[in-house]
Amino acid sequence: MSFTLQQIGIIQKAESEAPKVLIKKEFRPAMLHINNCSHIHILWWASDRDTPEDRRHVQGTPPIEGAPLSGIFATRSPARPNPICLTISKIIGLDEEEGVLILDHMDAKDGTPVLDIKPYLPSSDCVNDAQVPAWFLNLRPRYTA
Amino acid sequence: MSFTLQQIGIIQKAESEAPKVLIKKEFRPAMLHINNCSHIHILWWASDRDTPEDRRHVQGTPPIEGAPLSGIFATRSPARPNPICLTISKIIGLDEEEGVLILDHMDAKDGTPVLDIKPYLPSSDCVNDAQVPAWFLNLRPRYTA
Repeated sequence: MSFTLQQIGIIQKAESEAPKVLIKKEFRPAMLHINNCSHIHILWWASDRDTPEDRRHVQGTPPIEGAPLSGIFATRSPARPNPICLTISKIIGLDEEEGVLILDHMDAKDGTPVLDIKPYLPSSDCVNDAQVPAWFLNLRPRYTA
Repeated sequence: MSFTLQQIGIIQKAESEAPKVLIKKEFRPAMLHINNCSHIHILWWASDRDTPEDRRHVQGTPPIEGAPLSGIFATRSPARPNPICLTISKIIGLDEEEGVLILDHMDAKDGTPVLDIKPYLPSSDCVNDAQVPAWFLNLRPRYTA
């Protein structure tokens, strides 16, 4: 069974500028009231990992000290059966007319296709006491103390 | 530009049983060490919203008291340009051999295709002070106090 995704926007990154999502014209009305949310989920397509080899990739060793060989579903590697990646960012600017979302942070490269944007809802999305493997414990927290 | 998704598993829900993800045989090695994470992101495909009409849907009114007409990117509606939905769940049981993940919670229906599983990493995924519109404020918290 397979499903088809359409591109709704693109990541724009330029030196010494905050990263942006540029939303395609036909999807700009979907931004209404997005500025009532401080943070969003951005789903993007790791298009350089959309290869038959990478999409058969089921295990790998995260590039973190101490990490063992792990199943891809236990890692955030972009080389995975469906190269959908997920980034949570803070909205720091917005131009609904031009379809521009300015973000505090984005790990996707310039030119990356964007698939979806969802509001971040702490009631379902924030898990303060989530446990992680030891090798993930030393990652620098982005939004938490 | 369009991209192709493959199904990696399926949601199984039965009366008076905890919801499960059943992982397809070829993707079961991707579960290695997933039990080191307490919580996971599950990306699933709202296949009953995979229609030309729903995929052109850019605005709607969330079924929450007080919610105004909103852009789809400001809602979690499954009727969206790409009907990918995101649920965060706690792993309460696991059978790697048989490809079974038992969850504390799943809002997708029985039979829903699963696209991806990612570990929940509080360092990048937990935003304690995220602001949301007033109409989302009364949602019952799932994991936060």
